[in-house]
Amino acid sequence: MFGALPVKSSMDARGRAGEHRCMDLPTPALPPIAPDLAQLAATLFEELRAAHHDGVGITRETYGAGETAAMRRVAAVAQAHGLHMAWDAAANLRITLPGTDPTLPLACCGSHLDSVPQGGNFDGAAGVIAGLLALLAAQRAGPRPRGLLLLVMRGEESAWYGRPYLGSSALFGAFDPAWLDLPCLQDPALTLRAAMLREGADVAAIAAGTKLLSPAQISHFVELHIEQGPVMVARSVPVGLVSGIRGNHRHPQARALGEAAHSGAVPRWLRRDAVLAAADFAMRLDASWRVLLERGEDLVMTFGIFTTDPREHAMTRVPGEMRFTFEYRSESEATLEDFHALAETEAGEIARERGVRISLGKPVRTPPARMDPRLLALGQRLCTGAGLAHEVLASGAGHDAAIFANAGVPSAMVFVRNEHGSHNPHEAMEMADFLEGARVLAGLLMQGAEELDR
Amino acid sequence: MFGALPVKSSMDARGRAGEHRCMDLPTPALPPIAPDLAQLAATLFEELRAAHHDGVGITRETYGAGETAAMRRVAAVAQAHGLHMAWDAAANLRITLPGTDPTLPLACCGSHLDSVPQGGNFDGAAGVIAGLLALLAAQRAGPRPRGLLLLVMRGEESAWYGRPYLGSSALFGAFDPAWLDLPCLQDPALTLRAAMLREGADVAAIAAGTKLLSPAQISHFVELHIEQGPVMVARSVPVGLVSGIRGNHRHPQARALGEAAHSGAVPRWLRRDAVLAAADFAMRLDASWRVLLERGEDLVMTFGIFTTDPREHAMTRVPGEMRFTFEYRSESEATLEDFHALAETEAGEIARERGVRISLGKPVRTPPARMDPRLLALGQRLCTGAGLAHEVLASGAGHDAAIFANAGVPSAMVFVRNEHGSHNPHEAMEMADFLEGARVLAGLLMQGAEELDR
Repeated sequence: MFGALPVKSSMDARGRAGEHRCMDLPTPALPPIAPDLAQLAATLFEELRAAHHDGVGITRETYGAGETAAMRRVAAVAQAHGLHMAWDAAANLRITLPGTDPTLPLACCGSHLDSVPQGGNFDGAAGVIAGLLALLAAQRAGPRPRGLLLLVMRGEESAWYGRPYLGSSALFGAFDPAWLDLPCLQDPALTLRAAMLREGADVAAIAAGTKLLSPAQISHFVELHIEQGPVMVARSVPVGLVSGIRGNHRHPQARALGEAAHSGAVPRWLRRDAVLAAADFAMRLDASWRVLLERGEDLVMTFGIFTTDPREHAMTRVPGEMRFTFEYRSESEATLEDFHALAETEAGEIARERGVRISLGKPVRTPPARMDPRLLALGQRLCTGAGLAHEVLASGAGHDAAIFANAGVPSAMVFVRNEHGSHNPHEAMEMADFLEGARVLAGLLMQGAEELDR
Repeated sequence: MFGALPVKSSMDARGRAGEHRCMDLPTPALPPIAPDLAQLAATLFEELRAAHHDGVGITRETYGAGETAAMRRVAAVAQAHGLHMAWDAAANLRITLPGTDPTLPLACCGSHLDSVPQGGNFDGAAGVIAGLLALLAAQRAGPRPRGLLLLVMRGEESAWYGRPYLGSSALFGAFDPAWLDLPCLQDPALTLRAAMLREGADVAAIAAGTKLLSPAQISHFVELHIEQGPVMVARSVPVGLVSGIRGNHRHPQARALGEAAHSGAVPRWLRRDAVLAAADFAMRLDASWRVLLERGEDLVMTFGIFTTDPREHAMTRVPGEMRFTFEYRSESEATLEDFHALAETEAGEIARERGVRISLGKPVRTPPARMDPRLLALGQRLCTGAGLAHEVLASGAGHDAAIFANAGVPSAMVFVRNEHGSHNPHEAMEMADFLEGARVLAGLLMQGAEELDR
């Protein structure tokens, strides 16, 4: 990935630095964000926080009043700055900076404004406000052939209906009409259909499976988001470039089945200890995880629930059964498949060695979404050219960008350093980091299509 | 241990078998059990089962009507056969075959007749009935200098009061008077004091800490018991000789304390995963357990409870805390101490490697009880001489014999093969195995004192 970058060779070190740059690609520039736009962003974050603080954190319900109010506020600012705005059939907001050549596909960015209950102010909103800054920065740079589109999408979290990516799914006809009947988890009398109608969606069009956007209408999609993990804080980098959005395999009902026995009277060779078998399974996979990481593969693995049977809990009984959940995520479908096969193989070995059957059940699968490697490389060149410390990392959580990528749209994501994870009131993003991220977003938005056409 | 046995050397094989026996100890003989005594035992087992079957299993409450009735039935049979009987201050039953020299300490055997609720018919009763057979077999063999004593002891299980070995503890002044106030778990209005009074104990003497038996009054103690584990069935041996009664260290409140995190967004190097740490701990100790067994040490180890926090159960959260119990048992106090030190060392290594603190807490300790090696060797010679397949093994559960051994009385235990463990209605002991065990008990009882004096 770094082959195309300016490289200082050992010869450079002898005094010819800069003389012979082996470049076959131009060094792109990060667009500037003017101080008044930086102030606009800070004000918008504050307005949103003030409007939707619930006493503990930020609450903007999916297809609810808070989400709509936040979208209207962003729309109003966009219109005040001369951008165009419209609502689509899913009540997503489209903000456009038209180009001089309307035949060109639009360069698109976007994110969401709904939150989880008592969440933070930056998950979603950072991507929307950064998109607005990008369009305004492009506007100031003067007329361009290609138009820019900011999508403010509905129901990405969807904590109220349990089915995420509602708005982005509707764009590409991936919204299952059966979802319209989903009850609101906090108010079962309310269906998603009723909430969508109330917030202005054309439910009939959604129920008919109408596609609201063709992948051919946009050149590429870029989303900025706060990092939800601790990597960037740990590594002291303000900006991250996402290589892919991890898919996962989940085994929600795994079991280790041995035989209960007296803890004092049964020797090791006659035991079928479910705890030791499950621990063995976890350790074998932990060892393989480590090896796969060393080989450069992307993988995380979690046993979220890991428990003996509470109905039979006794200190002096060898447990006959363990129940656990087992989840692994990777940017690579092949890695997920390989790890699944490895897990089944280890389970078989444990059955032979310990007389305990480990039953994983069929995994529930979510496919990974690959970010476009050309856009990723452009992002790296943008950062390197600007001397901006950055990190390439996978996204462990899902995002609207995955819907675009899996619909065939070349996609990219920019992460901004953030402490304390997300989905809680303690999200902590510095404005300076946000503005650096917004510049990278703007650069990818404005220069991405040409990079893809190269 | 086999050094003192008749050995066929390779020279014997060339035709001089039996000519040169390198013996310094006689080959003892197993006393016979006459067919009418075998029939008596079978009848007694049947009577006890019929009298105390509760519809599911056998229930004879500690210091309750069932226990007393069973003791009276055994006393009546003993008296009918001319043995002496008496009750002590703890309402234990003493059945005696007097010797011709009343100055000699008595050879003593015994067990208990209380059960757990819905238990089996053999746990305890087998030892009492085998003791009765031993005294009657000795009686038929004619007058002997040393008298024999069968003790039928109260409250060994003590499932009704939670404090085991009540009757045997009272013998040696190890009965804590505070126990008198223990409430009956099934009827909290009833105290142990009231139950003991009701069944004829001299509670004032017990409260005063009166010793009911001096170790000097008995030469040795032997107890027959069904095996409560699966070893003898697995190895096809009818009779077991107990090398020791395992003590244990128990850690009822162990914890692994890491940090909760998002299962998708946090990479391995930034995790402090409590499940993997606890699994690592279990696997390290399992590996050491295996090595210790290979080195011939006695050890069992159990994680009876092993669980993530149910209040925080989620498939997509890296667990920050695990709770577990950790118990290990050995015949050797040194092994227990070494294993405890090893566990703390491994916990320290895991803290360094995984950033997860494993806190075991101070162990609750029960000391092991060593069976007398001279009596064990006699038991082996008795079995080998009679061509009786046998196995030397540790007792994982506690027994009255541990109270005797820890009071300084040379003690031995004989196990009888039994399927399905104990403390349940499915205890399955064959009468043929029982009679072999009773012969070994009789041999140890009649010949043990001379072995110890040798």
